[in-house]
Amino acid sequence: MDSTHILLIDCPDEKGLVFRITQSLYQQQLNILKNDEYVDRDTNHFFMRTEFEGNLNPDNLTAHLTQQLPKGVNIRLNPKKKKDIVLLVTKEHHCLGDLLIRYAYDELNANILAVMSNHNMLQSLVAKFGVPFHYISHEHKTREEHEQTVLKALQIYNPEYLVLAKYMRILTPQFVQHYPNRIINIHHSFLPAFIGANPYRQAYERGVKIIGATAHFVNNNLDEGPIIDQNVIRVDHRFSADAMAKAGREVEKDVLAQALKWVFQDRVFIHGNKTVIF
Amino acid sequence: MDSTHILLIDCPDEKGLVFRITQSLYQQQLNILKNDEYVDRDTNHFFMRTEFEGNLNPDNLTAHLTQQLPKGVNIRLNPKKKKDIVLLVTKEHHCLGDLLIRYAYDELNANILAVMSNHNMLQSLVAKFGVPFHYISHEHKTREEHEQTVLKALQIYNPEYLVLAKYMRILTPQFVQHYPNRIINIHHSFLPAFIGANPYRQAYERGVKIIGATAHFVNNNLDEGPIIDQNVIRVDHRFSADAMAKAGREVEKDVLAQALKWVFQDRVFIHGNKTVIF
Amino acid sequence: MDSTHILLIDCPDEKGLVFRITQSLYQQQLNILKNDEYVDRDTNHFFMRTEFEGNLNPDNLTAHLTQQLPKGVNIRLNPKKKKDIVLLVTKEHHCLGDLLIRYAYDELNANILAVMSNHNMLQSLVAKFGVPFHYISHEHKTREEHEQTVLKALQIYNPEYLVLAKYMRILTPQFVQHYPNRIINIHHSFLPAFIGANPYRQAYERGVKIIGATAHFVNNNLDEGPIIDQNVIRVDHRFSADAMAKAGREVEKDVLAQALKWVFQDRVFIHGNKTVIF
Amino acid sequence: MDSTHILLIDCPDEKGLVFRITQSLYQQQLNILKNDEYVDRDTNHFFMRTEFEGNLNPDNLTAHLTQQLPKGVNIRLNPKKKKDIVLLVTKEHHCLGDLLIRYAYDELNANILAVMSNHNMLQSLVAKFGVPFHYISHEHKTREEHEQTVLKALQIYNPEYLVLAKYMRILTPQFVQHYPNRIINIHHSFLPAFIGANPYRQAYERGVKIIGATAHFVNNNLDEGPIIDQNVIRVDHRFSADAMAKAGREVEKDVLAQALKWVFQDRVFIHGNKTVIF
Repeated sequence: MDSTHILLIDCPDEKGLVFRITQSLYQQQLNILKNDEYVDRDTNHFFMRTEFEGNLNPDNLTAHLTQQLPKGVNIRLNPKKKKDIVLLVTKEHHCLGDLLIRYAYDELNANILAVMSNHNMLQSLVAKFGVPFHYISHEHKTREEHEQTVLKALQIYNPEYLVLAKYMRILTPQFVQHYPNRIINIHHSFLPAFIGANPYRQAYERGVKIIGATAHFVNNNLDEGPIIDQNVIRVDHRFSADAMAKAGREVEKDVLAQALKWVFQDRVFIHGNKTVIF
Repeated sequence: MDSTHILLIDCPDEKGLVFRITQSLYQQQLNILKNDEYVDRDTNHFFMRTEFEGNLNPDNLTAHLTQQLPKGVNIRLNPKKKKDIVLLVTKEHHCLGDLLIRYAYDELNANILAVMSNHNMLQSLVAKFGVPFHYISHEHKTREEHEQTVLKALQIYNPEYLVLAKYMRILTPQFVQHYPNRIINIHHSFLPAFIGANPYRQAYERGVKIIGATAHFVNNNLDEGPIIDQNVIRVDHRFSADAMAKAGREVEKDVLAQALKWVFQDRVFIHGNKTVIF
Repeated sequence: MDSTHILLIDCPDEKGLVFRITQSLYQQQLNILKNDEYVDRDTNHFFMRTEFEGNLNPDNLTAHLTQQLPKGVNIRLNPKKKKDIVLLVTKEHHCLGDLLIRYAYDELNANILAVMSNHNMLQSLVAKFGVPFHYISHEHKTREEHEQTVLKALQIYNPEYLVLAKYMRILTPQFVQHYPNRIINIHHSFLPAFIGANPYRQAYERGVKIIGATAHFVNNNLDEGPIIDQNVIRVDHRFSADAMAKAGREVEKDVLAQALKWVFQDRVFIHGNKTVIF
Repeated sequence: MDSTHILLIDCPDEKGLVFRITQSLYQQQLNILKNDEYVDRDTNHFFMRTEFEGNLNPDNLTAHLTQQLPKGVNIRLNPKKKKDIVLLVTKEHHCLGDLLIRYAYDELNANILAVMSNHNMLQSLVAKFGVPFHYISHEHKTREEHEQTVLKALQIYNPEYLVLAKYMRILTPQFVQHYPNRIINIHHSFLPAFIGANPYRQAYERGVKIIGATAHFVNNNLDEGPIIDQNVIRVDHRFSADAMAKAGREVEKDVLAQALKWVFQDRVFIHGNKTVIF
């Protein structure tokens, strides 16, 4: 198994961690290509991401590292490869279209296994790219029933990540717990400004001069998961609420694409309600 | 009186307003240098700003325009000249220092008549630039007593605008009503995110990837006046709350300087809780 | 013919132009929705763009305006409607894909009549969107022969604008003169930095910290036509020339989309080698 | 000598470098606070910056590292402390004023030992801050004579860095060689666009939509030294060449301050004509 791997380690900080980790890799004759470390001083927690190549015995390396490192260490060891993902959408095409084009030209670092939607408006767009589309209407279903149907459809694909590419339904904690730290959402505001419904209308009413979008992991609290990326654009008095929404969509698709790039390259740690990104 | 003037008109919209206004100017042989108009569709309100030169009889022009334009029209007619201002500060020097340097080199479009502070830490900085400094401590005073002392000191100078250049005290409505739409504040967050105390700490706790600052007019509700300008910078996990505050100060001083430039050039209309800026 | 029109006027500046133009519109009972003016002081040239609605007699209005305005006035009077365009591409899909998605959802303010390419790699992408694709190889042809073939193909469609969405061939003045001020190109650098071939390689070699893209009208001098829009992103030492090219593509597609939006909304004047954009 | 130090190492890349360096630090019981590495793949060159604390014997550590690391290794070992600098200026106050305010409030990470100028216009500004000012006119002197006088004045101060804060004279290679990689300049364009004189006029003539500034190390070729930082702002047709220059000054002072921050924190490697910045 001679190829590139990515090693993600986080643990309580103590002296000599980089030395011990790089020693382990050196002793196993693995060649470091790229290395990043960070220590969060508030929580005294250490993070390290290493890209290396060489003839790897994963169990040996993990065992050796576990022995060397503090209790409670988290070790993730991933081959450098594409992630399997499923997209959830509602009616808006802009993020979906952008991701499908990237996928068609192998720029997404992921396989889009399927697209699921509570509406059927985006079916024809998805069909152009030969990706399975599941129309799972929420009508005449309770929230729980609808989520159960989605979960069942997801089981077929067993994705590593769910991407909410403008999925306009709130997920229950029961749903989220099936994909812990594995659901990524794009929110159409510069969080924490304008939490909740209709953020562009809120921004318009407040007369802000900048609007934005936020990509974040989904946890149990609406719009409060760890932020992966944010970006903004300038607006002025000439923007109606609708014009803000249109302009904001450009930011939404850029921010989501950027966040996915980082996540799918195994560059993101979740630490409490924050992210550490190398 | 042959010089450049700025005419600011806002009124309910109706057909022919630009025609009528430019006709009035034309008939008085005034030469338009620059003209901007905007109609807010939500409220059906018309805004126009005109820079013109020529031999002006201000009363004639105003009377003529009032006659031609809808009831409730607001007409402001200002010669193009520097504004008289007073700065209010507390302990932080960054906005103050920036404004003093601009003032020293005649780049502020304003005369800084005085600086007032509830602390005396910035006295030596202000002294370098030969500007009067009033140390008006808030200690052993009620909020109302302190504000009365400040208002009394302000009477000496009769400023057109008050600039809160990191003045860390909340102003009462009683104070604000003395300077309606004439107090400009710099708030150290990208409003409406992180309203209230210690926004950089709040931003740090939330793990945002962008922080910002907001210059706004002060009205009776804390941090809720009409926004003049906002700007942002990127941060990441390596920024402590303190590092965010430091980085944010760079944005604060830039945003305040930009907002003042627009206000002092008579480019800003206040419309409800928003601004229209030409 | 009761609908929204856009009136674009430019002429040597003189007193009373706004008055005369708005008077003409008022007398014909046309209602101004939006009005922008600008005077270039260096050349003493006046520009005005007016959106208006009402029952228009175009010949009457144009005749009346011509009579009122200085000699040499340029008057364009367009109904507010979509432009007919043809895209020219080579091998890169990112700008093309972005424009096709926008077109599919009626967000481009244009009809893409056809896509033409000197390679056939993008045929399948174009086919997904039901747009005619012309593969016009340049092999075994002189530059002039190739251009003649393209011109002939274009005659079928009679487009108002040609969009070079990463068309990697230089156009001769003979070609360009068929579409004066009607060809828009996206250049993969922040012009005038890195004119010519392989700008990302040049940027990498120079060690710049920001890269960009430029949308411009095409005239007879390579990369020297009037600039419509530019944008940039930060890079650092970790970006290889290839990584810069990848990151730059995101900017290219955003800048091209923005420039097309402005041009197709009749918001752009060309003035010498510059643009005036309202 | 128990304090924080910064270790900067660069050398040809080979396997095990991070391991060997961190082992050396570990064996000397030094505690790594922050660590960054980078390998330039084009030149196969390794860079590492380490902040550490502990009881250091500098000669021991350097000797140990030199023994462990490839031939041709560059090792810099600096205590974390302020740099001694001299500023060279001409007539413009904006960068100078900004740096003096930062210095007055201990935010520059440097001691400004003196300001030297070929004009005396900025003397009064410098005097406000109690910094020595040397007026060294270039009149009636050859370039060489003038530079000799400046060099002589610099000898008094023995600065670690010279900062050209809008010093509008070209330095000869003879001068530059006295401060190799230790002279930092702010150039008023987004290099390599608009090299040479009057870049804002050039930018205006070209009709660009973005202007910028570049902080770089000075080497023997005008405007061609390694770039440290760049930034930009949007402009449009309403900006005269003079308005561009004014707007550009805001960028100039921000970029210079940012570049100095990085250099004075020992975060910058020079590698050929590029910089690696951690």
